[in-house]
Amino acid sequence: MSPKITVELLRKLRQVMKGSKYVAEPIQAYIIPSGDAHQSEYIAPCDCRREFICGFNGSAGTAIVTEQHAAMWTDGRYFLQASQQMDNNWTLMKMGLKETLSQEDWLISVLPENSKVGVDPWIIAADQWKTLAKALSSAGHSLVAVQQNLIDAIWEDRPARPSTQLSALGLKYTGLRWQDKVMQLRAKMAERKISWFVVTALDEVAWLFNLRGSDIEYNPVFFAYAIIGMNSIRLFLDEKRTADPVVRDHLVLTEPSKAELHVECLPYQRVHDELQAVCSTLGPKDKVWICDKASCALTQAIPKMHRAPIPYTPLCLAKAVKNPTEIQGMRMAHIKDAVALCELFTWLEKEIPKGTVTEISAADRAEELRSQQKDFVGLSFPTISSVGPNGAIIHYRPLPETNRTLSLTELYLIDSGAQYRDGTTDVTRTMHFGTPTDYEKECFTYVLKGHIAVSAAVFPNGTKGHLLDSFARAALWDSGLDYLHGTGHGVGCFLNVHEGPCGISYKTFADEPLEAGMILSDEPGYYEDGSFGIRLENVVLVVPTKPKYNYRNRGSLTFEPITLVPIQLKMIRSELLTQKERDWLNDYHRKCQEIIGAELERQGRKEALDWLIRETQPIM
Amino acid sequence: MSPKITVELLRKLRQVMKGSKYVAEPIQAYIIPSGDAHQSEYIAPCDCRREFICGFNGSAGTAIVTEQHAAMWTDGRYFLQASQQMDNNWTLMKMGLKETLSQEDWLISVLPENSKVGVDPWIIAADQWKTLAKALSSAGHSLVAVQQNLIDAIWEDRPARPSTQLSALGLKYTGLRWQDKVMQLRAKMAERKISWFVVTALDEVAWLFNLRGSDIEYNPVFFAYAIIGMNSIRLFLDEKRTADPVVRDHLVLTEPSKAELHVECLPYQRVHDELQAVCSTLGPKDKVWICDKASCALTQAIPKMHRAPIPYTPLCLAKAVKNPTEIQGMRMAHIKDAVALCELFTWLEKEIPKGTVTEISAADRAEELRSQQKDFVGLSFPTISSVGPNGAIIHYRPLPETNRTLSLTELYLIDSGAQYRDGTTDVTRTMHFGTPTDYEKECFTYVLKGHIAVSAAVFPNGTKGHLLDSFARAALWDSGLDYLHGTGHGVGCFLNVHEGPCGISYKTFADEPLEAGMILSDEPGYYEDGSFGIRLENVVLVVPTKPKYNYRNRGSLTFEPITLVPIQLKMIRSELLTQKERDWLNDYHRKCQEIIGAELERQGRKEALDWLIRETQPIM
Repeated sequence: MSPKITVELLRKLRQVMKGSKYVAEPIQAYIIPSGDAHQSEYIAPCDCRREFICGFNGSAGTAIVTEQHAAMWTDGRYFLQASQQMDNNWTLMKMGLKETLSQEDWLISVLPENSKVGVDPWIIAADQWKTLAKALSSAGHSLVAVQQNLIDAIWEDRPARPSTQLSALGLKYTGLRWQDKVMQLRAKMAERKISWFVVTALDEVAWLFNLRGSDIEYNPVFFAYAIIGMNSIRLFLDEKRTADPVVRDHLVLTEPSKAELHVECLPYQRVHDELQAVCSTLGPKDKVWICDKASCALTQAIPKMHRAPIPYTPLCLAKAVKNPTEIQGMRMAHIKDAVALCELFTWLEKEIPKGTVTEISAADRAEELRSQQKDFVGLSFPTISSVGPNGAIIHYRPLPETNRTLSLTELYLIDSGAQYRDGTTDVTRTMHFGTPTDYEKECFTYVLKGHIAVSAAVFPNGTKGHLLDSFARAALWDSGLDYLHGTGHGVGCFLNVHEGPCGISYKTFADEPLEAGMILSDEPGYYEDGSFGIRLENVVLVVPTKPKYNYRNRGSLTFEPITLVPIQLKMIRSELLTQKERDWLNDYHRKCQEIIGAELERQGRKEALDWLIRETQPIM
Repeated sequence: MSPKITVELLRKLRQVMKGSKYVAEPIQAYIIPSGDAHQSEYIAPCDCRREFICGFNGSAGTAIVTEQHAAMWTDGRYFLQASQQMDNNWTLMKMGLKETLSQEDWLISVLPENSKVGVDPWIIAADQWKTLAKALSSAGHSLVAVQQNLIDAIWEDRPARPSTQLSALGLKYTGLRWQDKVMQLRAKMAERKISWFVVTALDEVAWLFNLRGSDIEYNPVFFAYAIIGMNSIRLFLDEKRTADPVVRDHLVLTEPSKAELHVECLPYQRVHDELQAVCSTLGPKDKVWICDKASCALTQAIPKMHRAPIPYTPLCLAKAVKNPTEIQGMRMAHIKDAVALCELFTWLEKEIPKGTVTEISAADRAEELRSQQKDFVGLSFPTISSVGPNGAIIHYRPLPETNRTLSLTELYLIDSGAQYRDGTTDVTRTMHFGTPTDYEKECFTYVLKGHIAVSAAVFPNGTKGHLLDSFARAALWDSGLDYLHGTGHGVGCFLNVHEGPCGISYKTFADEPLEAGMILSDEPGYYEDGSFGIRLENVVLVVPTKPKYNYRNRGSLTFEPITLVPIQLKMIRSELLTQKERDWLNDYHRKCQEIIGAELERQGRKEALDWLIRETQPIM
């Protein structure tokens, strides 16, 4: 991986920062966040502005350019990758390390007095704007909204915003009509005395209307906003989509049965003006819900007296708690996904000794095998297929120049997943196809202990996910080891592979309590820079459980693994496991054998079935 | 415990809320927080306003009185106690339960439109004022600073503010002269470009100046403020204290060696005006540090442009990390404390069968035994001495009307501690003097497993205490049990038994990362309402440890118990312990036997020594 040469780009950017064409007064710093106007994690090529300016293409990072400096903040998953992708015009700011300055502290330390710091108000979230503006103004600087994006101004061949074909999901997949979702939303609005709700997150729009698109790779979403009132539904999207008969039918655009369920489709770009128009009609007590992570531009379109910002919208929460149809779909998707992975590992065992399988070809093979499964739509994120030292780059993506060959001597880590029409998958397995070292096995076993500790945890109703994070680390900590990423994230149902409002992380964020029906990942790891990476990830469903007692009738929850792919036995030092852990593993493998075995049999995949049976033998 | 009758008091309070004598306009609600002007947890009798108005005398709680309602918020430790102490004019608001409204939500739900909510600005913390004012104003109400405290206005025989004799602590106890502490503080101020620092917490003033008082029961502090500049030290305290030769000598008031270490003593009441005077001399860039938990009145005396509020002051942090002299003092204090408890338990074993020992007499006996130890000053908090169902009242304090007799059939829980000139102690043991039930033993064993899980935890440098809280609960959770309080708090050195900025709790607060030298409690429990309470508490020291590996050279920490009092073996179902847990317990008891045994021997306490040896036998 060679770094992007950015001398010329930085020169141009600094020029427009000074020029009067885009900014009323010169700005001394310009912030380039990684998101789009919807604060999406994965973004369309036209929105990859941070990558364009610095070269780093990981999913999280913020670049800041001043007259003298250029710095980029990212987290532990990306330290190695970012240092390889950026040239020496850039300083890598390692978030999470004690010595690393925050963006505001860094700005204050490098800026001349009374500086202006510019940012595109459509790209920065309202809550970040507020924090940043406050910190800067307390140091005598000011944060300035630059309406024309300065990266776009210097980006000559910037791609167009995509507008892919939409597809409608029937009751069989969603379990609930969009009309019913709107009515449930309105009930929550009425309960909290809210008149309007602005939907800004793309997955919330897609979930609410039971529509899917492919505007953003890996995420079955489409560029849209919605404004929902008690008697009105406005959907903002590219006009040509409204002409599609599938969409017209699904949204009942032609012949609305009930006036308050009539969808009014408006052009995507109109959202700001329409929101202002809606707000101009409000009574003094009317309140408008908007996520505090929505763009500063859209948030400020709502007068402060009417604004009711919320950390998580009711749609975000409703979407996180899967209904029985969605749960069934997720189970089916994971069974199909496990079939593909059993086939992959069977194939790898045969092919690796020939020395012809690379990270890229293994990833391609995995995709091909998944695509053979029913209702396959595409991958849910770029496959992390990594051999030996590449495995230590936490969000590694194989490129021709980094591509290693799978061998009998190095660990192989594959973190991959797919979108099926019935569900989204995300699974990581770490395998050795020769003889692992004792140290590799030791580390793997600690990671497995952490994985089991979370998966088998019993906890009271109302517990927040972050309270479970240390369970995943205890075995590693005991030996002085750790990993620099969270342990789990919410997973959408044929939606984004990362979703809120729940998660399992040492970072304390305002996560919502875990509830039965939520689906998360459980993925501790261990990474030895320059040597290997280990990660074990299952998708798990929050389920009620009945332990011996029931303190204050609170009820208890635990997790049920939905991912059913064998965990490689040869990597385990079983003497390091407790009996309870061995029981968990044997029980898990029995379930893999039963459920995935039956499906392999049904699909006539004899060789993979033999592999599965061998890999799921109980350990003592 | 019979509730306080509050009809007449509430009538009088509602009268002054309406009257023009104290408030410019009538207020519709009045908030009575539990703290004093220093946001102390334990308060002097003259500051017990919340207890005066509602009867509830626990350490945490906020009362709010409106024209129609009276409600009091407290946490899980106090649900039972508060419900017993308040009459039916009061509604108990159980904090931490999902269905309980917050104070602001409750106010908004009960108040008529455009209401005024009053509060004494000296009693409410600046950060609470801000949050509350915002929430109220967003609902059309306003928060009003009522200068004259309305409880004081109706409290006829309110006690005077205490002004006890001060004592100076030498280097032998503090390890650092106050002059050096001031210089270290100034170095931190210079580093962060801070011109002034307002010390508002009583324990911070006491720690900084190496002075102790007894203005507040159980807390060796005295009413004072300090304002520290780079060349000036102003100490605000009752004038007659300045005449005391001990104080004059210690603070070098007569003949200051260096001008910038000259202490200027001013009357306690002058702090507000002096702070305003200091602020009027500030340059445009000058910043003043003040804790964001300081009173609203004092915080607002600093113009906003100069105000630099911080969640924890540098003194709070410096005080939390004990120096070698303080650590040695804490160890000595705990050895003496353990001697007293061994004597107590030996005595209880003999006396309980006679049926003459009560919760109160046992607590008195414990105090008497402690007072025989060198440098004993007093108790560090009211002894919780509780039998059977009283043990389930988490912060129970025995009163003549609730006093139960210790017996061979009920569990006995004693949570107690003392102030010695060399350190502060806090220890809880739960004992059965007859034959415990299997269920009592089962619960005790889960609590013990939680206690050990925290105490033996290994974790990386920089870990925050709240990440360890779930370790204490895992065994209880597994069986559907839990406890409704945090797991640990910071402990001062001959200072407050509860101190920040670290702790171990499921509540996510801005706790500072754990560091070697910090001292905390480790005290999980289990409470069965109406039956019994179990808690096991040691004070533990954060120490460096060297596990097998050292990931990224971060280093690891663990805890070393400083409390050395046997954990009752007959309460343990050892088949529920892992071998690692049994090893921990045997190792702990060996240490108790060695260290406390030697001291019992030295003090010639033969009977207690025999008891100790019997109670510290290894288990298999």
